[in-house]
Amino acid sequence: MTATKACVIGLGSMGLGMAQSMLRKGLEVAGADLNPAAVKRLEEAGGRGFASGAEAASDADVLLTVVVNAAQTDAVLFGGNGAAARLRKGGVIISSATMAPAEARKLAAKTEALGLHYLDAPISGGAVKAAAGHLTIMASGTADAFAAARPALDAMAATIYELGNEAGIGASFKMVNQLLAGVHIAAACEAMTFAAKLGLDLPTVYKVITASAGNSWMFENRVPHILDGDYSPRSAVEIFTKDLGIVGDMGRDEKFPMPVAATALQMFLMTAAAGMGKDDDASVARMIAKITGIELPKPQV
Amino acid sequence: MTATKACVIGLGSMGLGMAQSMLRKGLEVAGADLNPAAVKRLEEAGGRGFASGAEAASDADVLLTVVVNAAQTDAVLFGGNGAAARLRKGGVIISSATMAPAEARKLAAKTEALGLHYLDAPISGGAVKAAAGHLTIMASGTADAFAAARPALDAMAATIYELGNEAGIGASFKMVNQLLAGVHIAAACEAMTFAAKLGLDLPTVYKVITASAGNSWMFENRVPHILDGDYSPRSAVEIFTKDLGIVGDMGRDEKFPMPVAATALQMFLMTAAAGMGKDDDASVARMIAKITGIELPKPQV
Repeated sequence: MTATKACVIGLGSMGLGMAQSMLRKGLEVAGADLNPAAVKRLEEAGGRGFASGAEAASDADVLLTVVVNAAQTDAVLFGGNGAAARLRKGGVIISSATMAPAEARKLAAKTEALGLHYLDAPISGGAVKAAAGHLTIMASGTADAFAAARPALDAMAATIYELGNEAGIGASFKMVNQLLAGVHIAAACEAMTFAAKLGLDLPTVYKVITASAGNSWMFENRVPHILDGDYSPRSAVEIFTKDLGIVGDMGRDEKFPMPVAATALQMFLMTAAAGMGKDDDASVARMIAKITGIELPKPQV
Repeated sequence: MTATKACVIGLGSMGLGMAQSMLRKGLEVAGADLNPAAVKRLEEAGGRGFASGAEAASDADVLLTVVVNAAQTDAVLFGGNGAAARLRKGGVIISSATMAPAEARKLAAKTEALGLHYLDAPISGGAVKAAAGHLTIMASGTADAFAAARPALDAMAATIYELGNEAGIGASFKMVNQLLAGVHIAAACEAMTFAAKLGLDLPTVYKVITASAGNSWMFENRVPHILDGDYSPRSAVEIFTKDLGIVGDMGRDEKFPMPVAATALQMFLMTAAAGMGKDDDASVARMIAKITGIELPKPQV
């Protein structure tokens, strides 16, 4: 029995970690990224690096795309010198970029027209879990797509939700999650700066709220960045201008109003407009502090 | 050693439960409520019931106010035939209604002018925890106020946060918690109705989100009401039009903008305007369903 040949296009912190997890489980892994430093990191981890996705995908059983959005996914798969055509017959594309379900359905149709399988497979969990093989994957697709993707999924994820038998369902779950995650980050930043304005001791606020009905996963995870004054990007503001932007687009398409999510998007946009788009998403608190003149904790040296 | 004499004014689901917890721990408990049925329930639990707060408070060591807001607290304590003047010298008022910190400070000053102690002591945890003596109390006040309140606090609460040595700090913590709690309920309702619009299986959404980064305490607690189609009030929409209203008032007073909380308030107001003010706060989802024409789960018979 030969090892599954996997290809990863997009070797950022998520894609590289996913590649490492597959290498550790004995898959052959090739990969490509526009950034030569990212390709080098894959090679150091034991994978084969390429500048072009098409070369990396040559003869692969599984092609994983972990790029920024639907447009990039479409470009690397089906653009000039696209990677999809290079897979083995019967191979599967695992598409992990966050995107609207309609985009996932379009990509699935293009993929199936080539005689390949498509798994709509957005991910959750962050870079540390990606590297450890402990991601959560919210997947939908045909039984054949799941079967072909199985060795890669098992190597990358602690939890694999099988959410339905067609593309778009996984993407829908991810967008619902991102709506909540984005609102909760914005609310956490609003609440912590309000607490600072009221003169409260912020570490005590963190302790009390995380044990109370006001808690959220995001409050618990992001507020320590505010307490440490550390806005180095674990996940950047621009991720949420993008993801809440997709939520907003979907809402317009579906004629479905989402006032709370729309307001949270404006908070991230204000933060990006204030020059913090590439900083940690807890920077929404710094943006509010800047406007209101409150003091937040300084970085610890 | 004689038993502490406690008085509870406001025998709604919280106040009655707190009275029961104190009775169980051997305190003498008198109580008053405008609603004769509530007074009767206290008597059935072993307490002495009164129609007037002043009578109930006569000679008490500890007077607990669990009414709707600051204005009601002020009226029962210091209005015509007010209860505060009836306490034993050196007694303590434990003030548990949710209110702005400035209101708590005013009530403390009036209390101290009578030679009494004031504990700013908002509560969290709901009716079940109130009845079990497992509340969380976010308290601030002088050391003397804490000492005088101790037997009552220990009987009512699993967790007592001692947050500072003056009134207003407890209230501030509570308002920060309510800001988050209110936003998270509105976001949960927005997300679940959006999921319904996308055609997702709602129990699966609950399962996936509660295990993901989009989770919140309120999502976990309130979404089952939506899944069951059960909007009988565990906590009513009007609690949040009130509490997010206080947050909004504080923001205007402090010149501190809170766009996400302000939007969440509008969602609760829309729900109250649609006739659901006294229903469970998960009714924000029903309001959205009504506007958008989506179907939510029907009540199980």
